[in-house]
Amino acid sequence: MSARSPLAPERFPAIPPLPGVRFAAGCTGMRYRGRDDLMLAELAPGSTAAGVFTTSKTASAPVLWCRTSARRGKVRAIVANAGNANTFTGKDGEKAVAATAAATAKLLGCTAADVFVVSTGVIGVKLPVDMVTATLPKLHGELRASAWDKAAAAIMTTDTFPKGSCAKAVIGGVPVTIAGFAKGSGMIAPDMATMLAFVFTDAKLPAKVLAELLKRGTGPSFNSITVDSDTSTSDTLLLCASGQARHKKIARAGDPALADFRAKLNAVLMDLAHQIVRDGEGAQKFVAITVSGAQNPEAARRIGMAIGNSPLVKTAIAAADANWGRIVAAVGKAGEKANRDKLAIRIGGVQITRGGSAVPGYDETPVAQHMQSREIRIEVDVGVGKGKATVWTCDLTHGYIDINGSYRS
Amino acid sequence: MSARSPLAPERFPAIPPLPGVRFAAGCTGMRYRGRDDLMLAELAPGSTAAGVFTTSKTASAPVLWCRTSARRGKVRAIVANAGNANTFTGKDGEKAVAATAAATAKLLGCTAADVFVVSTGVIGVKLPVDMVTATLPKLHGELRASAWDKAAAAIMTTDTFPKGSCAKAVIGGVPVTIAGFAKGSGMIAPDMATMLAFVFTDAKLPAKVLAELLKRGTGPSFNSITVDSDTSTSDTLLLCASGQARHKKIARAGDPALADFRAKLNAVLMDLAHQIVRDGEGAQKFVAITVSGAQNPEAARRIGMAIGNSPLVKTAIAAADANWGRIVAAVGKAGEKANRDKLAIRIGGVQITRGGSAVPGYDETPVAQHMQSREIRIEVDVGVGKGKATVWTCDLTHGYIDINGSYRS
Repeated sequence: MSARSPLAPERFPAIPPLPGVRFAAGCTGMRYRGRDDLMLAELAPGSTAAGVFTTSKTASAPVLWCRTSARRGKVRAIVANAGNANTFTGKDGEKAVAATAAATAKLLGCTAADVFVVSTGVIGVKLPVDMVTATLPKLHGELRASAWDKAAAAIMTTDTFPKGSCAKAVIGGVPVTIAGFAKGSGMIAPDMATMLAFVFTDAKLPAKVLAELLKRGTGPSFNSITVDSDTSTSDTLLLCASGQARHKKIARAGDPALADFRAKLNAVLMDLAHQIVRDGEGAQKFVAITVSGAQNPEAARRIGMAIGNSPLVKTAIAAADANWGRIVAAVGKAGEKANRDKLAIRIGGVQITRGGSAVPGYDETPVAQHMQSREIRIEVDVGVGKGKATVWTCDLTHGYIDINGSYRS
Repeated sequence: MSARSPLAPERFPAIPPLPGVRFAAGCTGMRYRGRDDLMLAELAPGSTAAGVFTTSKTASAPVLWCRTSARRGKVRAIVANAGNANTFTGKDGEKAVAATAAATAKLLGCTAADVFVVSTGVIGVKLPVDMVTATLPKLHGELRASAWDKAAAAIMTTDTFPKGSCAKAVIGGVPVTIAGFAKGSGMIAPDMATMLAFVFTDAKLPAKVLAELLKRGTGPSFNSITVDSDTSTSDTLLLCASGQARHKKIARAGDPALADFRAKLNAVLMDLAHQIVRDGEGAQKFVAITVSGAQNPEAARRIGMAIGNSPLVKTAIAAADANWGRIVAAVGKAGEKANRDKLAIRIGGVQITRGGSAVPGYDETPVAQHMQSREIRIEVDVGVGKGKATVWTCDLTHGYIDINGSYRS
């Protein structure tokens, strides 16, 4: 395993027990040695859930299963394994998901459809499902409300640190908690979804409210990050509500009483999404790219992604080279309207271009200095409208090549 | 400069003098030391031309100039410099192009609009045009019909070898020659165009015939290659006809007498496009990806490009890791129809997947062996239609990071 990313937060956040939610983790032995690779989350009866999933045309067997369960909107458990994506594994893959759900349902006394089964890791290798089902009873016996960090660590693959986030909110004056964890490091270019992220709350919210909140929250967070432009077959984001909090009844996502909850949920989603970028394979720098002046927000996001996915921009950032010409080229290839002669590029707050060329007397010194830092800010105004968006990425380093030239073997 | 690519052809091809076309090259001293960086091609009066150019929204001043000249369809000269792209250089950039064209026109006794001005290199740095115009008279005095290799070498930037191609054809029984050269190594994901390629013929063809031939020829060649998914601001492909050959009159691209010419022209375009991939920055392997069974040829090309642009596929190839799961993921993210359960992936001719999972008893040995070679063949049938296309790319290595972390400085 690689050393902890230099962009990692100092520590896993302190997350309090959340009424109605318990976790356990253990080791199946199917791939990794000396670490947990199986996570079980148990939710109280009556819990609701919503999910967003990869748009990949080769989505995994677990994703197909979870989509069906998410439509029902009920959840009693999440089972996630790391190291094998159970993707492109044919009928055996589907059987493995069903067997995992059935074994869990039996332990919990619920129906299999209430169990979400999630896998990431290598694609195309059959999942040794017996190693999962044999480990589940032990996990069931060890469920604890405080095991957030253990759960977050068990779902990691090439991640170098576990990713968690927590926020307090109020609904109609009643305090509730939102907390979750995520994994993801490579194959990160979510499209209506992410790698894996599980977010929980003790709020009492119908599944359709959760779904609406999730839909609104993923656009500016998980759908605005990229490590390597490769969309995963396994992207899964689940939001689960145990319903233990005693706030007033909520029937729709637009309820004014949800204002604080919405803001805090979005903050948790954003925090987890950023942590995935901070653990981007080989990442040494965290890059925020804000595009303004586009035709609309979606166009701004696409231009931002064109910059954030450009290998030439990302290698220049790795080398601390203030090579803004590559940003010009990336804007040009995005396929969205841009006014070359109004293009304003700022790096680290310093305006570099104006009127279709470099600012007269442009002094690279402060920009070169900013390019040495861990957090890079790029702002681009494309001069045609009012659309604005921010996307986040990391630099492209030798570490990425090292990790991905040796991951499978 | 990096060592010559291991994928380079053994030598620059032998290209005979082409009636009505002469070349010269020299050194302006604006960027490179000890090598030529300025190329002048002179064509006989009456020569015709057509061009395709980058679709970038931040196209360079030279591209804007050449587009206008290409619409006129006449050519007397091409002036190309290397090391400075004259892109995003504002009004000064436009003036530099006009001054270069005017100086060349004066030397040749033609109008400035008949001079194509072409630049590649760093973006955003003002072109020291005086160094160009001061060098042009010397080049004019040294024009020679045999200087193909010298001309091809003068337009290189991060290229490690000059790229040339030549073919003989007949038009109505009369022999003609098609020959050209190209440059390109990074920022290669042409879209309706390429990096730089100049193709010449002594055939006598109206500009609209050249334009039609070029339009048909670029799709399967320059528009089907990618090194790093970054489309350049300077992509320019010119096809020029000196009209010295004494074949029958040709009025349209569909004339049956052009059958052989079309085939040979396409072969030259394909050869030059492949040489650009073979000189991809850091490339150690040349990769051909053939996608079949897609909804239509364009969908097949997009799936091929999704595979060819996947950093995870490209790093696996660099590491000789037969990690076909990443191909599954790339097909999934392409956004085109694909039947997961009919997906057939072959590497080096060996079928790996069938029926939605690995072929029973799949033996990786021959595939692993193929992955060690310089030329990698990937075939993917996505099982929904009859669309087929082939795209070409290279692997993603530490060399790419080295080159692009140090290019500008």
